[in-house]
Amino acid sequence: MTVKISQTAEVQKFFEEASGFNSEQGSPRIKQLMLRIVNDIARIVEDLEVTQDEFWMAVDYINRLGGRHEAGLLVAGLGLEHFLDLLQDAKDEQAGLTGGTPRTIEGPLYVAGAPISQGETRMDDGSELDEATVMFLQGRVVDTDGNPVAGATVDLWHANTKGNYSYFDKSQSEYNLRRRIVTDAEGRYRARSIVPSGYGCSADGPTQECLDLLGRHGQRPAHIHFFISAPGHRLLTTQINLAGDQYLWDDFAYATRDGLVGDIRFIDDAAAADARGVQGRFAELDFDFQLQKAVSLEAELRSQRPRALQVQGA
Amino acid sequence: MTVKISQTAEVQKFFEEASGFNSEQGSPRIKQLMLRIVNDIARIVEDLEVTQDEFWMAVDYINRLGGRHEAGLLVAGLGLEHFLDLLQDAKDEQAGLTGGTPRTIEGPLYVAGAPISQGETRMDDGSELDEATVMFLQGRVVDTDGNPVAGATVDLWHANTKGNYSYFDKSQSEYNLRRRIVTDAEGRYRARSIVPSGYGCSADGPTQECLDLLGRHGQRPAHIHFFISAPGHRLLTTQINLAGDQYLWDDFAYATRDGLVGDIRFIDDAAAADARGVQGRFAELDFDFQLQKAVSLEAELRSQRPRALQVQGA
Repeated sequence: MTVKISQTAEVQKFFEEASGFNSEQGSPRIKQLMLRIVNDIARIVEDLEVTQDEFWMAVDYINRLGGRHEAGLLVAGLGLEHFLDLLQDAKDEQAGLTGGTPRTIEGPLYVAGAPISQGETRMDDGSELDEATVMFLQGRVVDTDGNPVAGATVDLWHANTKGNYSYFDKSQSEYNLRRRIVTDAEGRYRARSIVPSGYGCSADGPTQECLDLLGRHGQRPAHIHFFISAPGHRLLTTQINLAGDQYLWDDFAYATRDGLVGDIRFIDDAAAADARGVQGRFAELDFDFQLQKAVSLEAELRSQRPRALQVQGA
Repeated sequence: MTVKISQTAEVQKFFEEASGFNSEQGSPRIKQLMLRIVNDIARIVEDLEVTQDEFWMAVDYINRLGGRHEAGLLVAGLGLEHFLDLLQDAKDEQAGLTGGTPRTIEGPLYVAGAPISQGETRMDDGSELDEATVMFLQGRVVDTDGNPVAGATVDLWHANTKGNYSYFDKSQSEYNLRRRIVTDAEGRYRARSIVPSGYGCSADGPTQECLDLLGRHGQRPAHIHFFISAPGHRLLTTQINLAGDQYLWDDFAYATRDGLVGDIRFIDDAAAADARGVQGRFAELDFDFQLQKAVSLEAELRSQRPRALQVQGA
C-alpha cells in the first residue's frame, strides 16, 4: 500500500514552518504560494511514488535548465505559456473585453531597447542576403472601431534564416532583426527584412531533453513576434505565424492561433523586384493589428517579466 | 469571480498533448509525471490567482537558481529533503524495517571519490591550524545486533572553519575534509580533523533570496555528513550535528534529528594535548553508527542522485 504522510497534522505543521508561517518577516504572498508548492510537490511524490532517483534527477534537471537559461523555453514547450493566454482570454470574456487581434505567447527571446524608427525601417543587417529572401512587411494598427492608431509602437523581433535570434546568437549584430516602428498618421508601419526560418530548441539543451522524453519535437513555424502599444490602448503581445510552414499547426510552443496566420506571398517577377529595389525572388506580407481600448493604465503596459537588456522606459 | 479553465475537457486534452500523450515515443513515466506537474502548476495559477508578473518572476527565479546550481540547496531549505526522510521512515515502519541510526539528509555538497584509508585518517590539510580547533572523531559501525561491521566504508565530509566545503570552495585543497575510512576488524573508524563551523547559504544566492521572502534564516549547525555502507547492510545517509551550536534545533535544512546529536567535548589540558600530539585546546567526538541489514542489493547502494565528480565505483 502507498504510504502517505504529507497531509498529517505533523507534516502540515512542518510545511508551514518551512514556508515561513512562524516568522513575522518576509512576504505573506510568497509564503502562501510556497506552502502550496511544497504541498503539491509532496503530494506528487506520494501519489506517483516518486523514487529518490527520480526526485534527484528532477533537482539536477532544474540546475541544468537554469544553467542554460531555458526555464522560459520549457514553460512554452509544456504549453503553460499558452495556458496563460487561454486563461486571460477566459477572464477577458467574463469581463466583456472582446475584439481585437488575438494575443499569443511572448516567448523567452525578446530584447528590450531595439532601435526606433518613424513609420518604416529596415530590420536586417544585410549579412544573410545571399541565402535569405527579402521580405516586405507592412500593415496598419487600428482600434476596435477600425480607426487608425497613429503613434503606436510596433516592437517586433524575429529569427534569421537559421532560426536564431540576435543577442542570444552572438554571431549576429546587435539588434539584428529587432526594431521598434512608430506608426504614421494612418496607423501604418512598414519594414524591410528577411523571411525568418522557424525556431528549433537547441538539440543539446535541457528543453529538448525533456521534449525527447515526452516523445515530442521542439520546432516552431517561421514567425514574427510583436508587442504593440499605444497610449489609451491595451498592450498586445502577439505573433504572425507564416502560412505554408510545416510546423504552422504543429508548433512545440502552441503559439499559432486562428487570426494569427500570415499569408506571405513569394514573388518571382523581375519588374516587381526592380520596383522594390531588390534582385530575384522576394516576399510580401501584409498584416493589420487591432488594439482594444485600455481599461486602465496597467493594461497599456506589458508584464514585469524579466527580459534581456531591459532599458528604462523601453 | 475566479476564472478557472484548467479542468475543462478542452484544456485537459491540451495538457495531455503537451505532456506527450499523443506520441508513441518517449517515456510513459515522464509523461505521467509531467501531466501531473503541468496540471498542478495550472491549478496553482488559477487557485491563487497568480499574476503574469508572479509567474514570470518564478520562471526567472528558476533560471537564476539553476544558474547558481542551488536547486539542491533550495529543496533542503524548503524541507522537501527532510520530507523524503520522513516518508522513507514511514515506509520502513510499514515494512518492519526499524532500528539502527536514523537517516538524515545528504545535502547538495557531497563529492565522490575521496581518498580511502584503512581504519584511520587525517582529514584536514593543515591550512587552518591557526584558527581551527583540532577534532578527534572516532566510533564504531555495528549492526542492529550490536556486532561490529568490519570493512564498512565510512564516507564523511564536513565544512571548514568558515562553513565552506572543498570543491565548491575553490580556495581549499582537493578533497580537503573529505575522506573514506574502512572500518577495522572491530568496526572502528578514527579521524583527526578540525571542528567544522556551521554552513550558511550564500547571502547573494537565490536560496537565501527565497528564505528572505519567507522570513527565514539560511544557517545550519556545525555538522559532519556520512554515507556508511557495507556489503549485506543497508546504506545509511546521515549526519552528526554538534551539541552546543545555536542552530542545532533551528537548522534551515531540518537535518538535526534525535539520535544524531554529537556530544563534542572541548579539552583544555596540556598533558592530554601532548599525549594527542597537538598544542592547546582540542576536541573529542565519539559516535557509533548502527546499520540495518540490507533486504536487497539495491538497499546497499545510495540513490543515483547526480553528484559532483562522480567516479566509477566510488
